[in-house]
Formats: sequence, structure tokens, C-alpha cells
Amino acid sequence: MNSQRNTEKWGCGKDEPHENGGHGSGSEFLLGLDGGATSTICVCMPLLPFSDQADLPNPPPILGRAVAGCSNHNSVGETAARVTLEQVITEALSKSCADRSSVRAVCLGVSGVNHPTDQERILIWLREMFPSHVKLYVQNDAVAAMASGTMGKLHGCVLVSGTGCIAYGFADDKEARAAGGGPILGDWGSGYGIAAQALTAVIRAHDGRDSQTMLTTRILKALHLSSPDELIGWTYADPSWARIAALVPEVKSCAEDGDQIAHNILVNAVQELTLCVKAVVERLNLCGADGSGSFPIVMVGGVLETNKSWDVGKEVINSIQKLYPGAHLIRPKMEPAIGAALLAWNFLMKESQGDNYC
Amino acid sequence: MNSQRNTEKWGCGKDEPHENGGHGSGSEFLLGLDGGATSTICVCMPLLPFSDQADLPNPPPILGRAVAGCSNHNSVGETAARVTLEQVITEALSKSCADRSSVRAVCLGVSGVNHPTDQERILIWLREMFPSHVKLYVQNDAVAAMASGTMGKLHGCVLVSGTGCIAYGFADDKEARAAGGGPILGDWGSGYGIAAQALTAVIRAHDGRDSQTMLTTRILKALHLSSPDELIGWTYADPSWARIAALVPEVKSCAEDGDQIAHNILVNAVQELTLCVKAVVERLNLCGADGSGSFPIVMVGGVLETNKSWDVGKEVINSIQKLYPGAHLIRPKMEPAIGAALLAWNFLMKESQGDNYC
Repeated sequence: MNSQRNTEKWGCGKDEPHENGGHGSGSEFLLGLDGGATSTICVCMPLLPFSDQADLPNPPPILGRAVAGCSNHNSVGETAARVTLEQVITEALSKSCADRSSVRAVCLGVSGVNHPTDQERILIWLREMFPSHVKLYVQNDAVAAMASGTMGKLHGCVLVSGTGCIAYGFADDKEARAAGGGPILGDWGSGYGIAAQALTAVIRAHDGRDSQTMLTTRILKALHLSSPDELIGWTYADPSWARIAALVPEVKSCAEDGDQIAHNILVNAVQELTLCVKAVVERLNLCGADGSGSFPIVMVGGVLETNKSWDVGKEVINSIQKLYPGAHLIRPKMEPAIGAALLAWNFLMKESQGDNYC
Repeated sequence: MNSQRNTEKWGCGKDEPHENGGHGSGSEFLLGLDGGATSTICVCMPLLPFSDQADLPNPPPILGRAVAGCSNHNSVGETAARVTLEQVITEALSKSCADRSSVRAVCLGVSGVNHPTDQERILIWLREMFPSHVKLYVQNDAVAAMASGTMGKLHGCVLVSGTGCIAYGFADDKEARAAGGGPILGDWGSGYGIAAQALTAVIRAHDGRDSQTMLTTRILKALHLSSPDELIGWTYADPSWARIAALVPEVKSCAEDGDQIAHNILVNAVQELTLCVKAVVERLNLCGADGSGSFPIVMVGGVLETNKSWDVGKEVINSIQKLYPGAHLIRPKMEPAIGAALLAWNFLMKESQGDNYC
């Protein structure tokens, strides 16, 4: 990532003494947090002067960055999630020689924010961690991912497919989302969805319900198992979705080697992901009346990363551009935590300049 | 159930004193256990004289019956599973005025037996609970379910669809199974599978990926929720499959009221269940060379129970009989635990008479 590039310029290295041990009296900071499925990342950015978003330095300056474990309360419970947030914030501020009272705003993008009550609960935790003048924002992690591709501007669509998948869109003051419900609620375009279908295909080939597939030998080898029967015990042993989703590279490599079942699973994932984007674009009318309007699609997550083999992301963008020729792809060069920090800057600026800017 | 019907005749009521506090010196017993997804049932049966299976009393005499919680080690862990087995066995024997040394054989039908290592592990637990002369058998719960429809004889096919689903078949000395892998491995004909698809349909209708469906209002009402968004938190809150599967009646009632999406989900479940049976029948050649051979299909589980609305079991048997006209339906009148006890009798008889009888 480029996130560390400008650290020295802004950092509090031993050779650069600062008044008050920080960045001079009156320095203010923004915190951006990315609460992902497996880790939580916090970055500390100086509060840049409000100006046109296009004038922001790209990449933005990052003073400190810290990483901790998962902070999704749905996965690890409330207590562990709070401890992790405390830890990662403390570390990022310490690395930036900043303290909590010098923070102007915090934006946390976190998975598991599906309902206003989720947002409110997390805001209460953050409120307890910061003085009352600090502005706090909690967003679904997809929103921070979008901001990482648009320098904080919320317009267009973002599609995330990692362990889970979700599409999110913004137009003027409206927003819309599709999918993001988790495995039980059918996120079939996600890494979990792809890999679960591959595991199912192995079982179906084994018991005679479907054709044989290369997935059998590849997946058994990857998991160090000797028979498809053993997959049942393997899936029961640990219900972590990320563990299932980690099999996506096996599916891609089988599809590249000509396995029809693996190919069909990926084609199905492309259709599902396209459908997610379509639902969001149509609800927000992002493509305009004649369907040719221009809008960005930010793509993020392991499933959509460019790769030399079967390229899910490329297929999805091709499929979307057939529907909406004006859609243009953005693959963010900065991490979602920086997106969250830019989002904090954007929200603050919007509040300081009135509601005409988003 | 009829399981208690003959208890008095064989029981150890206060008015019937027995030598040694049991059924007379030398009385021997069989235990049948059904280790289901939500409960474990144990029945104690007197050891009936070996004869033609057709001469067994129907229903067989049951001396004592006990019920405890789940004993699937995959679901509750090994320690809890063992405690539950101990408890239910002790109670059934106590009600029958029998002790462990008077038990001749025990057969446990339990979900989660998918691999020889599962069987071996449970046999070790049982071995610790009984003297060495007691014969012990551990089978997948589907096998006990079949025995409950065939008075212990293992020939033909059994289809179970409750929370999970599985097809099992026996012909001569061969056996075969299909599905039974659990939610991650695609048991789409199960109660879980049907309900998970219905929940997914509600989310898809809500976010614009699919048409509106009656399932939305019916399911939200059943779960006391006010918005589809809240389903995400609901599914995360408790990952129990039985809790999801409990929504099957809502799907059936929506399909009966003409909802196309609910109808399609049930049609898909019928196809999946038919495919499970087909895979087993073909592998065992149960239908004979010309496809018209006669064989029983035992059907068990909440999803397949006769009901006045959309009848999944009836549709499945219609669909199977189109493929195999000689298939005849058996809906067991006795519970799987009694099937397990009959299986113990059958295995014992087979051992005493040589290997020519199954």
C-alpha cells in the first residue's frame, strides 16, 4: 500500500522535536478505521484545510497506522470488539504523537452495520472513547471502500467481494445497497459463496448427484484430506467463513484449466455480482434516463482482484458495461482505512460548508 | 407414537414383582437409540426369539423409553454428547427394571456419522458404558429411520428431510448415500435449505434483485421483525439450523396461497430430494436392469410429512415413481429409536445365523 509513503514528512521521528510532543500546538487530526472480517486497521491523518476535494494530496499523508484483530461485534462479541477498537486507536495515535483530544473526527467503516441500531451501538462505544467535541461517524465498510477509490466523495457504486459481498451506491442524498446478508442469506457472489458451491460440487460428484470435477483433487489436496467424506467433518470443525472463502484460488485455477463445473460456479458469481450492482444502479438511477450516464464503480476485495487466471473482476465489469456503457471502473490504490479518514474529512467539510456538498 | 402401547405387558409395574428386580433371571434386552438434531431417544426392548423377521410383533414391545437433549458431537461437543447418552440409557434401563449387564445389544442411530472415524469414536464411548459381552452398533440416523419402516430389514432406500436431508440405500451387502453434508455442503432439499432460500428471497426482493414475495410479510410476522434489514442480525444472533428450518411451514403456506417464489423453492427442494434418491438407486441398481424392479422408499422427517397444503413428500414420491415405477412408499408408524432396536435385533440374528441374512 502507499499509505506509509508520506509518513516521514508528517511523522514524529526522534530527529524532529515538536512542541507539546505533537505536531505543534493546535494540530488537529482525523482517524480512519477499517473494521474488516479478519483485522481492524486505524490510520491517523492530519486535518487538511477544507478546499475542493480534487485538491487533496493523493495519496493523503498518513502519520500513524495500527493493525489489530477483528472488531465485528457480530463475529467476536461486543466486549472483544470494543477492546480491539480501543487498542488500535491508541496505537495509531501514539505512533502519530497525537492524543484523543486533538482528534477532530473519527470515521469507522465496519462490516456488520446493517441496521441503524448497529450504527447507534457502535457510536455509543466510540463516544465513550473520545471527548465530546470529537465528531464520530460509523459506516458500513463498503462505504469506506468506496471513499478509498473516490478520495472520499460519495457518488457512484462500490462492489466488494471478499469473504462476503455487498454493493453500495450513492447519488445526491440517496443511498442503496444490495446483498451483504452473509452466507445464510445467499451472498453467492462472495468468496464464501464461490467456495461453498465448489465444496458442494465435490460432495455431489462423490455421491453421484453430479459429474466429476477437478475440484475434488485440488480441494482435498489443499485441505490435506483424503476423501470427500472428510469434508463434512472439516466444515463442521470450524464454521469460519474466511476459512471456506480461502478456497477461491482453487476454484479459479480449476476453471482456468478447463473444468466446466468450476467455470460455471465463477460465471454464476459474476451474474450474482452484476445483479447486485444493477439493483443499486437502478434504484438510484445512476445511469440516467437513457442508461448511458457516467458513474464510477469502485471494486474491492480478494475475489475481484486482477489475476492472470480466471478474472472475476474483469468479467463483472464487462458484464456491467454491457448494461451501462457509462460505468467506469476504479480499483482503489489506497486502503479502506484511508478511505474512512477521507470520509471523515468529507463529512466535516460538508458540515462546515452546509449541506450542499457530498 | 405406538411405542408405549405394549409397555404394561412387559413392564416392571409395582404389582408384578420379578426375581432379581428385573424380568426374571436371564432376561435379556436390546437398546435402540435415536440421536437426532434436537433430542436423543432411547428405548428398551426385550430380546425377542430369533425367527423370520416377518413374525416380529408390530409394533414391537417397548419396556422403557427416555428422552434427553442433542447427542450429536458435531453440534454439542464430545463431553456433552457423552453425558446425554449416559443419561438417556440409564433412564430407559431404569424404567425397564433392567441393568447394563442384562443388555445383549445396543444400536445407536445418530446424525453426524459420516466417516468410519465418527463411528469408531462413538463406539469407544459406548464400550466404556457397557460390559464387554454387550454387542454395540453405531449407524447414521438415516439407517435407523429406514429400519423403523422395514421392521429392521435393510433393503431399499430411505429419504430423510427434517432440519437436514440425506438419502441412504441398501441392496444385498452394498450401501450408498447421497447428501447429508449440512448447510455449507448444499443440502438444498432440507428444511434448512428451503427456509434459507426463503430468507434469501426476502432479502433479494427488499434490495431489488428479485420480485416481491408474500414470504416477506409472512416470515417477518413469524419472527416478530419489522423490516427485512433485521433478518441479517436475526441470522447472526443464533446460527442454529433448526431455528432456520422452523420457517418451512411459512414457505408451504405462501406456496399454497399462490406465491410463485415460494412455489419455486419447494419445486427446487423436490428436485433436489429426487436427485438424492436417484443417485442412491442408480449406484445400488435397486430398480433392476429394466428400471421397473420393486423396492421400498422409506420417507421420514418434518419436510416430508403429509400435510394438507403443498405436500413435498407426495411430490417427491410422484417424481420418483415416474423414474422408477416399482418404488413403493413407506411412511414408518414407529419412531427411529425403535428402528434402531430392531436393527440391533437384526444384526444380532445375522451374526448368530451367519452372513446369509441381512
